Amino acid sequence: MALTYAEVAAAHERIRAEARRTPVLTSTTIDARTGATVHFKCENFQRMGAFKFRGAYHALSQLDADQRSRGVVAFSSGNHAQAVALAGRLLGVPAVIVMPEDAPKVKLEATRGYGAQIVTYDPRRDDRQKIAAALADERGMTLIPPYDDPHIAAGQGTTAKELIEDAGPLDLLLVPCGGGGLLSGCAVAAKHLAPRCRVVGVEPAAGDDGARSFRSRSLVTIATPDTIADGARTTSLGPRVTFPTILETVDGFLTVTDEELLRAMFYLWERMKIVVEPTGALAACALLEGKLDARGLKVGVVISGGNVDLGSAAARLVPR
Amino acid sequence: MALTYAEVAAAHERIRAEARRTPVLTSTTIDARTGATVHFKCENFQRMGAFKFRGAYHALSQLDADQRSRGVVAFSSGNHAQAVALAGRLLGVPAVIVMPEDAPKVKLEATRGYGAQIVTYDPRRDDRQKIAAALADERGMTLIPPYDDPHIAAGQGTTAKELIEDAGPLDLLLVPCGGGGLLSGCAVAAKHLAPRCRVVGVEPAAGDDGARSFRSRSLVTIATPDTIADGARTTSLGPRVTFPTILETVDGFLTVTDEELLRAMFYLWERMKIVVEPTGALAACALLEGKLDARGLKVGVVISGGNVDLGSAAARLVPR
Repeated sequence: MALTYAEVAAAHERIRAEARRTPVLTSTTIDARTGATVHFKCENFQRMGAFKFRGAYHALSQLDADQRSRGVVAFSSGNHAQAVALAGRLLGVPAVIVMPEDAPKVKLEATRGYGAQIVTYDPRRDDRQKIAAALADERGMTLIPPYDDPHIAAGQGTTAKELIEDAGPLDLLLVPCGGGGLLSGCAVAAKHLAPRCRVVGVEPAAGDDGARSFRSRSLVTIATPDTIADGARTTSLGPRVTFPTILETVDGFLTVTDEELLRAMFYLWERMKIVVEPTGALAACALLEGKLDARGLKVGVVISGGNVDLGSAAARLVPR
Repeated sequence: MALTYAEVAAAHERIRAEARRTPVLTSTTIDARTGATVHFKCENFQRMGAFKFRGAYHALSQLDADQRSRGVVAFSSGNHAQAVALAGRLLGVPAVIVMPEDAPKVKLEATRGYGAQIVTYDPRRDDRQKIAAALADERGMTLIPPYDDPHIAAGQGTTAKELIEDAGPLDLLLVPCGGGGLLSGCAVAAKHLAPRCRVVGVEPAAGDDGARSFRSRSLVTIATPDTIADGARTTSLGPRVTFPTILETVDGFLTVTDEELLRAMFYLWERMKIVVEPTGALAACALLEGKLDARGLKVGVVISGGNVDLGSAAARLVPR
């Protein structure tokens, strides 16, 4: 069922006190390079370092007293884990997170640091969805899905609501896309607040299931994509909420290669002085690599997160 | 001659159209760690990546038509070079920059990119001040000093003016200190706008000439300090403007080691998602390393710049 703007607006009221209203940054250099006026919504400055906090906090805030006392369970390769862990701590809800044992160290540690219990699994052998479902079943915990849920997508859509409130109406909005929670929520907000704004999702080339689903208008599922954009290693959009919403509100998709993504990530570090994780750089990358002509347009770009393991990112910079 | 607040306020009007009003960021994690409410003024997001633009643009804007047409010369190991180059381009003033041949590559390239002519010298053999003076003499160019000048210090002081306007009165302001332009300008602004605010300068331990000058109330000159904080490799405060102003307005000095500075720099990258150069992290480092007790205080921290060579910074992170 497609998401509505009323749900995004209601979510905004519910998360306002705890979610950070992240700054919108601009860059003279990037405006000159693209010929556009670009507004970067910096969710890498969000609590726990990514937009995921908005959705997770919103979803947990909607649980009743009984659900809260029994706790929540989530499976995630990273940012959703930290988001549910932190939201759980803030709302006094116990959280169990099912994480792949090879998740970035910085994300495993941060999740534990927020007080969640971690259950690891082998991504080559185990089905994380089954593990989480079993936990939910045994302990009566509520499963918090990573994206295909109206509360999650509505919370994530507040990102674009704030961006347009702060920057004014946009001609074009570029949003990273994994499972489509952020993209669908942001598209709903943008189409309501700036009806002429074109909304484009950006995926890693190796994980272009969203683009293919959008073009064929039927849900395409792929094998887990091999990409450095670990937040977009999803196999399909969500059948329940994100795919129907995207079909209604999104205007197009673009893809970028891992090589382009790394280049964009380091460009943002070097020129804008912001630390962006690979998935967080997807939308900026499409713009910087000239995947579309933005000359003369007022463009919004969602930088979705900054939780990159500096050690391994640095290794890619240093010739050995 | 000590700087006045009227000079800082006048500078702000003159630079307002071109200097970026940089954001003030906060961090729940850092507030929890320090027990303070901390407001980071992010001059790493300033044009050309550092506060130096404020002073350079202000100084160049005060030249008369004849001086503008003959151009300017500056010597600098880095950010002042880029600042004068960019200000020159914006104001149509030709600029020659005298830079050490071993300056960070990212700074050499950026300076050239802003259209300045670069003259390099060997820092182990040549006297950059003499080279610049000879150029000024031969070509009738105006020498733009890096810090010991009322226009420079007044422009740089607008950093604290904006911080206090945006964050409200502070109890404590921590400012990086090299030659003292930023510190003296910020102290003048802070004492005027928040009279009860304590202002503390932070230096690298290897370059503690400012602390020693402050304590002895006489100008101490040291050999060029060996520190990763390349923006603070100054040998003394300025006898003309910055030292007298600091004596009147600053409450104390702190120092941090290079090891502490690296730790702070990477902490800011990892937790706040901002790229900060070593010199830019001085003030934040003093706070994060517990060099003073800030519990219960409303603290301002100036992050002065973000022009770090990612390749060499990365090399320090990656075990070889």
